[in-house]
Amino acid sequence: MGTLLTEKEWLAVLPTIKYVLSDCDGVLWNGDRAIDGSRECLEKLRKLGKEVFYVTNNSTKTREDGVNHCHKLKFQAQLNDIYSTAYATGAFLKNKGVKSIYLIGSRALWQEITSQGISCNEQGPDKTDAEWDSLKNIDLGDPVEAVVIGYDPHFSMSKVCRAASYLLNPKCLFIGTNEDQTLPTDRKDIAVPGTGCVVSSVQTASGRQPTIIGKPHPTLIELLRNDHPDITPQNALFIGDRLNTDIELGRRQGFRTLLVESGVHKRTDIDPEKAPTYYLPSLGDLLKFMK
Amino acid sequence: MGTLLTEKEWLAVLPTIKYVLSDCDGVLWNGDRAIDGSRECLEKLRKLGKEVFYVTNNSTKTREDGVNHCHKLKFQAQLNDIYSTAYATGAFLKNKGVKSIYLIGSRALWQEITSQGISCNEQGPDKTDAEWDSLKNIDLGDPVEAVVIGYDPHFSMSKVCRAASYLLNPKCLFIGTNEDQTLPTDRKDIAVPGTGCVVSSVQTASGRQPTIIGKPHPTLIELLRNDHPDITPQNALFIGDRLNTDIELGRRQGFRTLLVESGVHKRTDIDPEKAPTYYLPSLGDLLKFMK
Repeated sequence: MGTLLTEKEWLAVLPTIKYVLSDCDGVLWNGDRAIDGSRECLEKLRKLGKEVFYVTNNSTKTREDGVNHCHKLKFQAQLNDIYSTAYATGAFLKNKGVKSIYLIGSRALWQEITSQGISCNEQGPDKTDAEWDSLKNIDLGDPVEAVVIGYDPHFSMSKVCRAASYLLNPKCLFIGTNEDQTLPTDRKDIAVPGTGCVVSSVQTASGRQPTIIGKPHPTLIELLRNDHPDITPQNALFIGDRLNTDIELGRRQGFRTLLVESGVHKRTDIDPEKAPTYYLPSLGDLLKFMK
Repeated sequence: MGTLLTEKEWLAVLPTIKYVLSDCDGVLWNGDRAIDGSRECLEKLRKLGKEVFYVTNNSTKTREDGVNHCHKLKFQAQLNDIYSTAYATGAFLKNKGVKSIYLIGSRALWQEITSQGISCNEQGPDKTDAEWDSLKNIDLGDPVEAVVIGYDPHFSMSKVCRAASYLLNPKCLFIGTNEDQTLPTDRKDIAVPGTGCVVSSVQTASGRQPTIIGKPHPTLIELLRNDHPDITPQNALFIGDRLNTDIELGRRQGFRTLLVESGVHKRTDIDPEKAPTYYLPSLGDLLKFMK
């Protein structure tokens, strides 16, 4: 079931930690509102010599957007501190030597990908009439080496048709930024669809399984390890508010994990088989242990 | 593996058949082109006293549209001969006593449902801006008793958001007209998404499993049996071109089944565990046995 972290235990653990990898939404802030004590907690960890990285599934922000959001909420951040799925997708494609893709995604994802020198369709609504008669006569243009799916407010049947058609070529890679089913809101009566809804639609049309960049899959951590090869299960702590993405990723990597209850999941949601190492109501409580 | 139907076997089987239930696309026609011999074959069967019904997963045509398409291609048809998912969905909802629904679907589906006296949102594009900020502030209006998903050329993130939000209420029914992954085309380089792509997206956002009206699920046959209670495994033949929908439905019902190779699947696609009773290149070959 994991352990409610105590001050005594934390002070014993703290010296062994060199790397702090933290999720953002639900841990550090909720939208434009910083969570009490989270900023001061990261500051304190940095003062104690820890290296702090932001690790997020959000594919609608570039690294630069991420830095700006941090600064707006007075969190310390540089480009190299941010490991987001938009950035990671661009880096992943570049590592694979991909030169051209078809993208269903946001402008930010487009920027992170094209900034790696990869050619990509423009974003926004697909102008093709999505009636059956038009789709079967669609012009696909040149083949592409990968289809990439992220959150796209202009998602449509014509985009699914293009993506699934490129994927008829078994050599064409199929990449999803993440599989999040919904996005968190304060309203209990609204289910805002996440990237997972776009991914599952293309998966159905193509009959293919995507490679997923986001948590709990390992790509974000592999990228971090490229830059910081000395990250190990012994010296890292992963902090998150979601059991199935954050805590699951940390668990699979052998990192110690801390669930904070300021976002999606609470201690009562914990599956004993997949428990975090520790849990706490919020990062504000961790800060109290270090004053 | 099923049996290649011979003239001798057919002439032995024929007297035991009272009901012929036939899929349409790929069996009787491909789009606007009748398949050679199929019209004459159904005519001959009717002359021999068999009752012939059209059983189709297509949700974008009303019964009336179906009759018109038959007449255009010179097939005999009346309203009562046509069992389509659009018609069956309206009938299913009426049987369940549903008074109000949210629909992602076509104009034809809308017509079949509202003609049963059920209230339903208008079809066409959802005007809500599908950016995250707009979706989390969406106005859902009054609750509905069911969410219904069919083929919708105007499918969008805002429609998924509405559907998944209504489905947060566990009493709200979740109905899909069918799960077809793609629609058949002559082009080998295009995968046109089917209704299954819309269904899977709402399934992902809502975390719920839909009730599916179309083949291979039994609703179309249940509806046929309401009108013709004496249909039995002993007196019915199901004809289709798809193993996973047509033949699978016939198999589950205990009907004899005939796969024709004029549409999607060929004899080489047959899984021995789920084989049709018979197979033939096309209905034209069946006609030859009755001349």
